[in-house]
Amino acid sequence: MSFDLKNNNSQNEIDSLISLLAKLPGFGRRSARRAVLHMVNRRETVMAPISQMLSKVYENVHECKRCGNITTTNNCKICSDTKRDKSKLCVVSDVSDLWAMERANIFNGRFYVLGGLLSALDGVGPETLKIPFLVERIKTEDIKEVILALSATINGQTTAHYIADQINKIDVEITSLAHGVPIGGDLDYLDEGTIEVALKGRKSF
Amino acid sequence: MSFDLKNNNSQNEIDSLISLLAKLPGFGRRSARRAVLHMVNRRETVMAPISQMLSKVYENVHECKRCGNITTTNNCKICSDTKRDKSKLCVVSDVSDLWAMERANIFNGRFYVLGGLLSALDGVGPETLKIPFLVERIKTEDIKEVILALSATINGQTTAHYIADQINKIDVEITSLAHGVPIGGDLDYLDEGTIEVALKGRKSF
Repeated sequence: MSFDLKNNNSQNEIDSLISLLAKLPGFGRRSARRAVLHMVNRRETVMAPISQMLSKVYENVHECKRCGNITTTNNCKICSDTKRDKSKLCVVSDVSDLWAMERANIFNGRFYVLGGLLSALDGVGPETLKIPFLVERIKTEDIKEVILALSATINGQTTAHYIADQINKIDVEITSLAHGVPIGGDLDYLDEGTIEVALKGRKSF
Repeated sequence: MSFDLKNNNSQNEIDSLISLLAKLPGFGRRSARRAVLHMVNRRETVMAPISQMLSKVYENVHECKRCGNITTTNNCKICSDTKRDKSKLCVVSDVSDLWAMERANIFNGRFYVLGGLLSALDGVGPETLKIPFLVERIKTEDIKEVILALSATINGQTTAHYIADQINKIDVEITSLAHGVPIGGDLDYLDEGTIEVALKGRKSF
């Protein structure tokens, strides 16, 4: 046959959009195609708001210089919210962890987003994570408690211990999240490590 | 506690974008959050192209008046491609079906996208699907074969029979896709209906 779809740029822009979306995490070509058709079929009600909001976020999004959270406003509202407890600082590795804490709606202090974890293998050192700036913040601000909300992995614990070492001469309480059985968690599906810490940390009933 | 995250519009635009994306098919809040963070962390390499392409497609996308395919260019390239066989017209229900046929890269004719299937229950009649326009096209153009590539469901077959009735006085061959065992399909996982048509349509080996 003498036709070549590769040279047929009939839907180049639509195809390009599908290819771009297909690379997002959780998306593949099939779901990208479905999403694009869904948007095209709802041009004004779905595609327009997404397109506008995406370009707004693209233009305005930046990292908060104090805490590393992402924001589209001038001041990160968590940092500038005077109702929040200045004496508590929660250290997380990523913005997604900060969001998870905020969704839990239980922490009224402030955050510090490292933007990763120490990893000798990946060449991530204290400067990359701006740990010196974190230490400086803890030294100079009126912080009473630093909560190390880092993952229970080797890199997470290495990072937690490194930060604790750096600030252990400052008069500040250092805590970390409790480990144990998740609420609603089924023992049968839990790894041995979690069961071990849960048993060791058992409380009187 | 005296704080209310609902009134804290710290990431209103980011949150709005997440909420909008979460409504796309195949997406939920969790994957929308992941996608937004992925884009924000790759602002220039991922977010910029998606944002630009999305607004381009939003501004330019429209239905081809002849075939119903979506396109961002003035003429639908399938309809205006002179290398394609004008004598074959493939009738499909949706743009996604047209795309599937094009991906198979085996059909060199043209298309007609109904934009749905006849459904008395949902009030979808022949006018909604522009079947009169399709009949007119078949009458006036030099079409030799109409391939009814409609799904093997009740609505799909009702629609196929309706279209066949409308054009059976026109000198045109009417065909439909073969039914049978899909390539790579496992008999064990096939429904009885498919096995029945596959057996009835068996060929000498």
